[in-house]
Amino acid sequence: MGRAAQSSPIKQVRTMAKPLASIVSVGVTRFGARDGLYARELFQEAAQEAFNACPELSPRRDIDGLFVGQMSESYEHQAHVAPMISDWLNLPLTPAFRTEAACASSGVAMRCAIFAIQSGAHNVVLVGGVEKMTNRPTADVTEILGMASDFPFEQWHGISFPGIFAMMATVHMTKYGTTEEQLAKVAVKNHQNGILNPKAHFQKIITVQDVLSSRPVAWPLKLYDCSPISDGASCIVLTTPKLAKKFTDTPVHIVGSGQAQDTLGLYERDDPAFMNAPYFAAKKAYKMANVRPTQVDVAEVHDCFTIAEILAYESLGFCKRGQGGRLVDADITARDGRLPVNTSGGLKAKGHPVGATGTAQASEIYLQLTGQAGKRQVKGAKIGLTQNVGGSASTGVVQIYRRGD
Amino acid sequence: MGRAAQSSPIKQVRTMAKPLASIVSVGVTRFGARDGLYARELFQEAAQEAFNACPELSPRRDIDGLFVGQMSESYEHQAHVAPMISDWLNLPLTPAFRTEAACASSGVAMRCAIFAIQSGAHNVVLVGGVEKMTNRPTADVTEILGMASDFPFEQWHGISFPGIFAMMATVHMTKYGTTEEQLAKVAVKNHQNGILNPKAHFQKIITVQDVLSSRPVAWPLKLYDCSPISDGASCIVLTTPKLAKKFTDTPVHIVGSGQAQDTLGLYERDDPAFMNAPYFAAKKAYKMANVRPTQVDVAEVHDCFTIAEILAYESLGFCKRGQGGRLVDADITARDGRLPVNTSGGLKAKGHPVGATGTAQASEIYLQLTGQAGKRQVKGAKIGLTQNVGGSASTGVVQIYRRGD
Repeated sequence: MGRAAQSSPIKQVRTMAKPLASIVSVGVTRFGARDGLYARELFQEAAQEAFNACPELSPRRDIDGLFVGQMSESYEHQAHVAPMISDWLNLPLTPAFRTEAACASSGVAMRCAIFAIQSGAHNVVLVGGVEKMTNRPTADVTEILGMASDFPFEQWHGISFPGIFAMMATVHMTKYGTTEEQLAKVAVKNHQNGILNPKAHFQKIITVQDVLSSRPVAWPLKLYDCSPISDGASCIVLTTPKLAKKFTDTPVHIVGSGQAQDTLGLYERDDPAFMNAPYFAAKKAYKMANVRPTQVDVAEVHDCFTIAEILAYESLGFCKRGQGGRLVDADITARDGRLPVNTSGGLKAKGHPVGATGTAQASEIYLQLTGQAGKRQVKGAKIGLTQNVGGSASTGVVQIYRRGD
Repeated sequence: MGRAAQSSPIKQVRTMAKPLASIVSVGVTRFGARDGLYARELFQEAAQEAFNACPELSPRRDIDGLFVGQMSESYEHQAHVAPMISDWLNLPLTPAFRTEAACASSGVAMRCAIFAIQSGAHNVVLVGGVEKMTNRPTADVTEILGMASDFPFEQWHGISFPGIFAMMATVHMTKYGTTEEQLAKVAVKNHQNGILNPKAHFQKIITVQDVLSSRPVAWPLKLYDCSPISDGASCIVLTTPKLAKKFTDTPVHIVGSGQAQDTLGLYERDDPAFMNAPYFAAKKAYKMANVRPTQVDVAEVHDCFTIAEILAYESLGFCKRGQGGRLVDADITARDGRLPVNTSGGLKAKGHPVGATGTAQASEIYLQLTGQAGKRQVKGAKIGLTQNVGGSASTGVVQIYRRGD
């Protein structure tokens, strides 16, 4: 079904799934090296932006739950971050806890918050994520991130995530003829978007040649195929579709949510060049939302490495298996293409403070669907999608959003 | 309201709150030094026990969600445990994630699972917790646990949890005249229960004199005032009250659930000798359950240190503020007392694999309310309560249970 079909009244009805929960405000810090700031301060910065953007919201009165996604206690030698953050936000007593699913930590926090809203136990919750990473040397960061892979079966043998994604890439190249140039084009596209996002870590146009000639990290991945190490936080204010009207005239409804898992170790999978977890997560989310891939107007996907964005296209049904590279070649996922992907700059250019990524993706979709995305606005976007993965896509979370009007 | 009032028909109605969710099976590993077993293997052992105890349950067919509480990635250099555990349990694709709230990690996992069940998104879920700790030297464990206190404001200054709880104890002793003997009696009572629990870490009777003459850790806390470092896992199978009948004739309903936070740092609190978070959590849970403290037949509370059990009594309304020590003196919380507390042996004698503690408490209450607690059975127990705290009670989670009949 093409986009044109959306204008058919019958098809239009298909998209009117009942919202699960509604976003009424968002906040994102500038991503990058944020020297001198602790995670708690970064989270507060994001939350304050969300509060300021929603004058109808009185945080102390309204917010009755806090869900914080954070990957690791190791960066700041700090576990138990949820009460620390609720204290820092002046939300004493408010039930708060942390979720962890590696780089999908705030993606699962969102799911948890959706359950809490749907259950009736909570009315208005703050869901966010944070990671402070640049205070540690790069080798430490690589090791800490590596904890999201299997200790006895992966880490122990010296493999880290660039190597794991490099293996996925080489299988994809062998099976489908995907090229290093196609991988490079993902980075180029996302940097083009990043310069339009004042919060993005990188504010710089790069060329395919820049990517190809950058320092090899784990062949075929070069430095510019990898997302950077960043500090940052993001959050969203989530409520019931009914209460949403109290806070804003332009809510964004979450109309589909799916999560699935894959084996922690890549070695156990039948096909390392296909991401099962986001595939099954998307299948569920699409069904719940009554939305098809071709109806998506704008998507944020988890491009921790360039190959990951190509694999995302395939698991989300944006193209057939093996065709992800060609989608980039055809500029379909460019900002002015048929299906713009990672208008925020993606993890590649916006940055990837891992715990913050899930709700940062949701924030970008909120801005796009409410017409607040500034120079990177996708005109008339009504339906959005986020895909957030943990580890080598051992966790996959997909949410689908609809402009509330 | 005394216990006698329960027999009044009008008062009886008060206890018939609508269940939030229902436990249909539980499993707990033996706690202690479980050499040679990884966390994933421990969790599997607990899950297998829960599966075996419920022949009507077909895990692959029925379980549609997995919630894992674990405090720390540091013991096994392993984050992202949820997909690892779902893989190990042969529950591929099943949405799974980890929650972390220090020693209340599986207490909050339970809350998350309750939301998921109530929301309608899940029908039958496995909720559990695990920690593998004895593979690390004691000094490392103390440091890892210490991450649950505030890094710049507590850890940095060299304080660890025995010191934090020692400060609570000294304030309590100063304000209320609580004695070292009263603290010691908590340990003695819980060891008396522990010898009746074959899963307990310690199987040994101790005397007040043993406690008082044990090595000082942080005055007034001696070695025998402290819960041990243990390995272990626990889990419960949770479903809707309606579906519960399909799996068992004797479900245990969760009829109240509350969570609240306090400041992460002890120094910020008005009264270090009172636990606000479990107090407010209990207040909410009691209200939801239509249950009063005096109606509780059996309770599991978070006695990470002996003083913590005394503070638990006070925050749960088992006695007035400052009177916790006298409750122990009067043997009210002994196994044959009016309000038996920690029949499992508690954290003190059963052991405290931190992530496992919340669902281990729930498991004990399930066994008690279904008459399966063996030699430690509290006769005719109908209403149970668990109180699980994280850090210095920066997180407090209280659940109230009712025998389903």
